[in-house]
Amino acid sequence: MLTLHFAPRTCALASLIALEESGLAHEVKMVDLAGSEQRSPGYLAINPKGRVPALVTDRGVLTETPAILAYIAQVTPAGRLAPLHDAFEFARMQAFNAYLCATVHVAHAHKFRGARWSDDPAAVETMKAKVPENMAECFRLIEETMLVGPWVMGSTYSVADPYLFTMAGWLEGDGVDPARFPKVLEHRARMQERPAVQRALARAGA
Amino acid sequence: MLTLHFAPRTCALASLIALEESGLAHEVKMVDLAGSEQRSPGYLAINPKGRVPALVTDRGVLTETPAILAYIAQVTPAGRLAPLHDAFEFARMQAFNAYLCATVHVAHAHKFRGARWSDDPAAVETMKAKVPENMAECFRLIEETMLVGPWVMGSTYSVADPYLFTMAGWLEGDGVDPARFPKVLEHRARMQERPAVQRALARAGA
Ligand SMILES: N[C@@H](CCC(=O)N[C@@H](CS)C(=O)NCC(=O)O)C(=O)O
Ligand SMILES: N[C@@H](CCC(=O)N[C@@H](CS)C(=O)NCC(=O)O)C(=O)O
Repeated sequence: MLTLHFAPRTCALASLIALEESGLAHEVKMVDLAGSEQRSPGYLAINPKGRVPALVTDRGVLTETPAILAYIAQVTPAGRLAPLHDAFEFARMQAFNAYLCATVHVAHAHKFRGARWSDDPAAVETMKAKVPENMAECFRLIEETMLVGPWVMGSTYSVADPYLFTMAGWLEGDGVDPARFPKVLEHRARMQERPAVQRALARAGA
Repeated sequence: MLTLHFAPRTCALASLIALEESGLAHEVKMVDLAGSEQRSPGYLAINPKGRVPALVTDRGVLTETPAILAYIAQVTPAGRLAPLHDAFEFARMQAFNAYLCATVHVAHAHKFRGARWSDDPAAVETMKAKVPENMAECFRLIEETMLVGPWVMGSTYSVADPYLFTMAGWLEGDGVDPARFPKVLEHRARMQERPAVQRALARAGA
């Protein structure tokens, strides 16, 4: 049994969808971010970084969305959730996931988590103000140079798709009109039709 | 033949060391960051993100350090540069690399690249001021909870090691005394003894 430490409307949704797609037995434990449970001693014993997601396996705890996504794909090869037998295609998928993790997610985080990078409340406000511009530029690059379509990697679904779906779900809240990115919008709609996505959203209370 | 687009004193050093370790034939093309070559049309045609590293292969271009590192390990299995036959251990390595990419590198980037996240020069100065504290906190977590020792994964060297080595090389410049992190310091010294690291540093002009 796998246990996913999760919070609604976070990047952890990508891992939950991938678990639902994989058929792996899993349970979800909610972490109360508003109540700062991620910084409680109990949660820090699971993930010393104080973040979600964390995936508890019988071998130990895994963190970091791109690592969890590739892991789920590798342990369920029959599910064909990643190009496991082509190192170049696997690397392309991983590059996409790394971009979401290190650039898109970080652009978004400057909205609510600016205090990580500056102690000055006025500076944090200026970071917030730039989030729409940065998220729009990230999604322009995704739309024009990365998203092959209909799925991220082309004709084949992979764990990069729930990750894109998760971050594309942040656009409106981040002040970006998704109509600027028709391929991303079509991808979002196509994802919503998948039973695994519907199950994940229902479980997520999102 | 692989071509690595590279710049000295950047995260691209991790990929260069991994290439040297792998035995793969490769050449290095310098990108002049000071001269903004990364934003020239010629370079954007290679990597639309305008960053290094980019690895040109006969199948196409790969970007993002964690993706490039895992790729190098997967195409040279005899080099044993990653735990390729154990999905859990592979995920642990990937989680380490994702942390470096999305948290440590981003903490560091707020020193010289704060303008990415705020248009206000005064705000950018406050980000710079917090870099020593954030880098120290990242390396405290690495020292106490991630770096098994002597190598990142324990007794076996992997592509996570050149990546840690690269970022640990930024500590002094980021205002952090590495003496606070004895395991990281020992790791740095052990890395410097490896012929592949010495070759990479010589080629890098770093
Ligand atoms: N690099 C990590 C980032 C994880 C992360 O930052 N999660 C956010 C939610 S999207 C979180 O737990 N934030 C809580 C906090 O910052 O206290 C990943 O990709 O999994
Ligand atoms: N997520 C990318 C980050 C690449 C990156 O930011 N590279 C820096 C050098 S360490 C760069 O090219 N900066 C040039 C610029 O920002 O214009 C990776 O891990 O490879």
